[in-house]
This record gives sequence, structure tokens and C-alpha cells, in this order.
Amino acid sequence: MKLKISYEEYKRRVKKVKEELSNRNLDLLLLTGDKSIFYICGFTHIATERPAVLGVPLDGDLFFMGPLLEADHMRLQTSLVKEIRTYIDYPGEKHPIKLFAKWLTELGFGKSRIGADNPMGATGIYGYVGPPLNEEMPEAKFIKSGDIIWNMRLIKSSEEVELIRESAKWGNLAHHLLQEYTSPGMWDAEVSMLASYEASSIMKKTLGLEYEPIRAGRTPASAGFRGQVGWKSAIPHSIGIGRNIQEGDILVTGAGADVGGYSSELERTMIVGKPSAKQERYFEVMVKSQEAAMDAMAPGVKCSEIDRIANKVIAEAGYGNLIRHHTGHGIGLEGHEPPWLDVGNDLELKPGMIVSCEPGIYEIGYGGFRHSDTILITGEGCEVITYYPRDLESLTIL
Amino acid sequence: MKLKISYEEYKRRVKKVKEELSNRNLDLLLLTGDKSIFYICGFTHIATERPAVLGVPLDGDLFFMGPLLEADHMRLQTSLVKEIRTYIDYPGEKHPIKLFAKWLTELGFGKSRIGADNPMGATGIYGYVGPPLNEEMPEAKFIKSGDIIWNMRLIKSSEEVELIRESAKWGNLAHHLLQEYTSPGMWDAEVSMLASYEASSIMKKTLGLEYEPIRAGRTPASAGFRGQVGWKSAIPHSIGIGRNIQEGDILVTGAGADVGGYSSELERTMIVGKPSAKQERYFEVMVKSQEAAMDAMAPGVKCSEIDRIANKVIAEAGYGNLIRHHTGHGIGLEGHEPPWLDVGNDLELKPGMIVSCEPGIYEIGYGGFRHSDTILITGEGCEVITYYPRDLESLTIL
Repeated sequence: MKLKISYEEYKRRVKKVKEELSNRNLDLLLLTGDKSIFYICGFTHIATERPAVLGVPLDGDLFFMGPLLEADHMRLQTSLVKEIRTYIDYPGEKHPIKLFAKWLTELGFGKSRIGADNPMGATGIYGYVGPPLNEEMPEAKFIKSGDIIWNMRLIKSSEEVELIRESAKWGNLAHHLLQEYTSPGMWDAEVSMLASYEASSIMKKTLGLEYEPIRAGRTPASAGFRGQVGWKSAIPHSIGIGRNIQEGDILVTGAGADVGGYSSELERTMIVGKPSAKQERYFEVMVKSQEAAMDAMAPGVKCSEIDRIANKVIAEAGYGNLIRHHTGHGIGLEGHEPPWLDVGNDLELKPGMIVSCEPGIYEIGYGGFRHSDTILITGEGCEVITYYPRDLESLTIL
Repeated sequence: MKLKISYEEYKRRVKKVKEELSNRNLDLLLLTGDKSIFYICGFTHIATERPAVLGVPLDGDLFFMGPLLEADHMRLQTSLVKEIRTYIDYPGEKHPIKLFAKWLTELGFGKSRIGADNPMGATGIYGYVGPPLNEEMPEAKFIKSGDIIWNMRLIKSSEEVELIRESAKWGNLAHHLLQEYTSPGMWDAEVSMLASYEASSIMKKTLGLEYEPIRAGRTPASAGFRGQVGWKSAIPHSIGIGRNIQEGDILVTGAGADVGGYSSELERTMIVGKPSAKQERYFEVMVKSQEAAMDAMAPGVKCSEIDRIANKVIAEAGYGNLIRHHTGHGIGLEGHEPPWLDVGNDLELKPGMIVSCEPGIYEIGYGGFRHSDTILITGEGCEVITYYPRDLESLTIL
């Protein structure tokens, strides 16, 4: 059983970046995105105000420039990064970006063509301020090249698919417990915490000590409602509601699990008590829209086409004005990532892409209806990785 | 009991921004940071790839430009934002940034002096791509002005202090439960989830239905170890360890709670079993360093001076080479924010600043020692808001 990306795959990824650097006539790629750094070398860290950069040179080994507190952490996690240069902390007596410019020059990149996901040299969160790295290296040429990694991340390898499949199992368990514990009078957050805690505990006991969470600050497996409870289910990214769950509530859920840093996405619409005719109708149209979109997913089909197909079902039922977002997004190391299943994205689906499929219907003041499943695009069509029941009867809490 | 910032305080904040716009001869401030948007108008949302911008004009009411799914969400949360313009979703048939440029021009800002926390017009996460907003508005002049909000956030109001005090209570409970449930053989993440779940549940039942979490994706109250267990306690931002808690382990904890979007920070070093002489020695030096830093905190003292004082205690004990980070950081809406208690930051402490105080000692292969407390700078000196016991006896798990 594999719970992590293999060393060999990281080596393949580095090789691929180097090929792309060669194609683009670049000497170096600098990465500041925490998930992109993890993708290339397996080093996971908590991104903060402290600038941290992974360097992938066209020739030679990976190097890292970052805060002292990540140096030993990196050595423990990856053997691919051969040189680690650190500053004590941010902002420091000399600003980290000035040190990065100095170190890059010492490493021979002072006049190079440098690709960067962010020419600032820092993600810039938590009130960070600093000079842009490209301005500190006037003789180098910086070229925005974040797409090198994003293009790679767009197509999942068999190892990545395996981790996302494993994630779907534990998301399923978390969701099962969530449904089991949901009842009128409960605080939605409490149901969520209890289900997440138990599912995570069982996951660890099942997978054994080899299992380690990669994502900080979240439960390893999780299920919850993000505040989509009762009339607030009509707010797709609601966060809380100032009352407990009640009879008659529409609930929109979400579940997943961190396996080797990857996650799956499972969302369901549940009804507390016997569904009304209106609830049934919205539910039915939402499911039909999701099915139509899933049926259409196959290599060569444009992402925009999938969004149009899902929207058409909703519009033909007379609810076109109740759409609040597009049909889906990529899933992998981030909760959302390319490709976007959106009318504005004409990118064609390809085997190995993994996307959510989640058209929704939202009536303000009443409620929202959305399932989300994790879909793998295959050679001929697609495969639905998540498998929690989708029918209303199974999702009714009596 | 107050669990949220008042409407009056939001109005005062808006007024202050407008005064600063006037001082700087700016017509408008554009904010993309989710916490800064919340700070100004009380609207909390889950930041994604979808661009979302709050506009604070020198004259007139606040306006928002963002994804359709946040429109009703915003109307529910704030009455300060009078105009909401939305696009359906990202990337859309017309890119949101092009729409923002068009809308800003319609609103009369086509040739204005525009302050922005991010001239891109988007935070740029999750693989987002798009044209920079400033390049789409060539006749306007964009000036980086994120410091307007960060300067305001630096000094906490009495309402903010009250929320952080309330947060400290529930962080204390979560930490108490964490210590109670910690024992050899337990998975650290499980202890953390159980303590966080119970503390959150009790917090809600105590504070009542008025309590609503603001931060998405986290438990309302929380306590945990972030992987700082056993020899991995020497890695300040460790995430996991491939074994359970054992007799003899050094543990470094962290606890807090979300009250109105604000949090406090409480961290403790705990020992499982009777402490060794070496553990006692490191613990004692760490506590002395923290106390020296806290004793020195007062208005007019430079942040750099606090860091030097803490470091000096550690260095004089012979452990200068075991320092891995600076002494502390601001706390408020973010886990880390300015001011930085760092040798490189000569900013003077002022009444109303709230900072962590957390010098640490880390011996690789052995363990790490760090307490963190939340400190309010007062008129004469400082006040320690967190109050969990700091002494070794209280933190020994037998």
C-alpha cells in the first residue's frame, strides 16, 4: 500500500521541469508556492511571512533558500535538495530577498534567464513586505513561468490517482459518520468535528504508523457542512449559522482525507426529515445536471462544454437564475486547482485529469442543492472515484 | 458579552481609511486580502482562485467586486457595502480582472490615483492566472498601499482586545483537555482532535447561539502539537511524526480559539514522564528567556531589543547555536502578523499592540523547548493575556 509519492516519481518530475527549462531557454526555475515546492521535492512546510524558495536549475541539483527553522525539516523530508541556504528569520538585519539575490548570484545565476512562479520571491502573506527579487537582480531576466508546474500538476500520474482513490475511501467513512451523527438539535460544527475525529482515528489505525498527515492545521480525514445548513445552504461558501440543525433543514456537506498531501472531494445534499415536494424537485434537477455533466466527461471534450451541459439541464428546468457558480475544478494538492469546468475555459479534458463535478441550485432564503464527486478522466471517458450514495432516499435523515 | 466587532467600530475603521486616503492624495483603496476585507466591513469569505476586491473610496460608500457566490453572502454579513458587482465564476467568458477595470471606470476611477494592497487585483492562489489590474487601467495610477490597513491592524482597539481575551479562555480550556488526554501510546493528532472537539463544543454551549466561528476549515477552539513530538519537537514547524507519543517525549503544543475572527496564541513545552536533568536545564533556560522578554515589553521599547534580550539569555546559557527563529510576532486576525519581534525590526512597541512571546531552544535529534504567550502592550508595560501554567511541574505528564 502506497501512502506517499515515490522518490522515483519526484525524480521524474524534476527531470520534466529541466526539460521544460531547456525548451524555454531558461537557466533556472524558482518556486515560492508551498504546494509546488512539495510537488517537486516532497518537502511540506507551513507557509508564513518568511520567504522560502526552491530552485530547480537547468543543470545541477535542487537548492533551497528559506528560514532557518525549515532547514532541518527539509533535510528530514527530502534528499533531492542538496544545498540549503538559510536566514535566521524575517525581516532580519538583512532582508531575506537581498540575501536570495546575493546567493543566486554566488550560485552563478546573476545574469541568467530565471523562470519564477512569483518574481517577488515571496508569497507575501501575513503582512510581509519586501523588495521584489527581480528588482534586486537587475542583470538577470525574470520570466513568469508558474505554468511549468501547473501544466504538470494538471495531469495526475498513476501514483497520484492511487493516493486520491485512497483519500476517497476515508472521505466516504467521514461522510458516513457525519450522516449518522446528524440530527435535529445538534450544532453542525459539533457533528463535523466528531465525524472528522473518529474517521481520522480509524484511518490511522487502519493504515498504520506509516500514515502521516501532510497538510497542517486540518484533521487528516474530515467531513462537515461549512455552514450550509437550513436556509444558509443557499450560500455556497457560508461558514456558520446562528442556530442548530432543525427538522426540515437542507444540508450541503463536504468530505475528504489527506493521503500523501492529496485529497478527494465528496459533497452531498441531505434533507433532515421527510423531503417536501419542492425539495424533491430541486434535488432531482441537481442530480440530473450532475449526471449529464459526468456522462459528457471524456478526453477531447472542452471544459466549457461540460459547464454548458450542466447549466442547460438546470436552465431547462426553469432554474437558470439559481446558478451561483460553475460546474467544477481540478483537485489534487489543493482544494481547488486547474482545470476549471467553466464556460470561459476551452481547454480540452485529457486522461489523468481529476476534477470535481458539482453543479448547484441555490434559492436565497430557501436552500441550496449540490452534490460533488471526484472524477478521473480516463482513456475513453471518465471514472467516478467517489462512491457515496447520490439518491434522495439514502440522503434523507429520519 | 461581545463576540463580534461592533458596527460602530467598522464605521470608525472606514473613516480612518478615508482620512489616510486624503493624507496620501488617493481617490480609492482596493483590498484583495480576505482578512483586510473582513477588517474593514465584517465580511468573511473563503478566499479561492476567484478574484474578490473591496473598494473604499475617498468619497462615497464601500463597494465590492467579486464572484456571484459571494454576493448574497456579503449582503447577509454587512450593511456597509452598498454596491456589489459580480461575475458568474472564474475564469469566465470575460476575465474578472477585465470586468473589474470596466466597472472601476464606470464608477469614475478610470483616471484616479488608486491605492491597492495588490495591484494584480487578485491574490493569485490555486493556479489563478490573469492580467494585472493596473495594466488593464493604463490611465489610472496604482500605488501600493497595503500598509494603510496593516498600520491600523497593528494597534488593537479595546473591542479587539476583548475578543482576544475571550479567545484566550477557550484556548486555555482546549490546552487543559489536551494535557489531560496526552499519554504514552496515543497518536498526537488524535489527542489534538479530541481536545479541540470537546473544547469547541463546551465553548459553544457556554457562549450560546450567538457564537459563530468566522474562520473556515478549522475547529472553533483548538489545541495540538503540529508534529512537535519527541525528537521532532526540535523542528518548530514539524507536521507529523511516524509514531505515537512515548514515555520521555518532549512535546510542544499550541492552542487558541476563534472569537469574532480573532485568536490568541498559547504554546507550552510538556514532558511525558519524569523530566531528565537535561530536559530540566533546557526548560529552565527557555522560561528565563521568555520571562526576560516579557519583562522588557513596554511602550517605546524596540521590537529588535526584545529579540536581543531573549536571545541573550539563551546565548549566555551556552545555547546560542540552538536558536531557530525570532522571539515573536503580532497576533490578531492572522496567526502571524506585524509587528515582528526580530533583531531586524526597529519599530517601537506601542500600547494596543498584541504579540506572541516565544523564544525557543532546539537541539536536533533531541528535542525543542518553547512556550508562547499572548501579550498586550499597555500604557506602562505589558499584560500577559494567556495564563496557562508555565512551570515544569505543572507541565509534566505522569
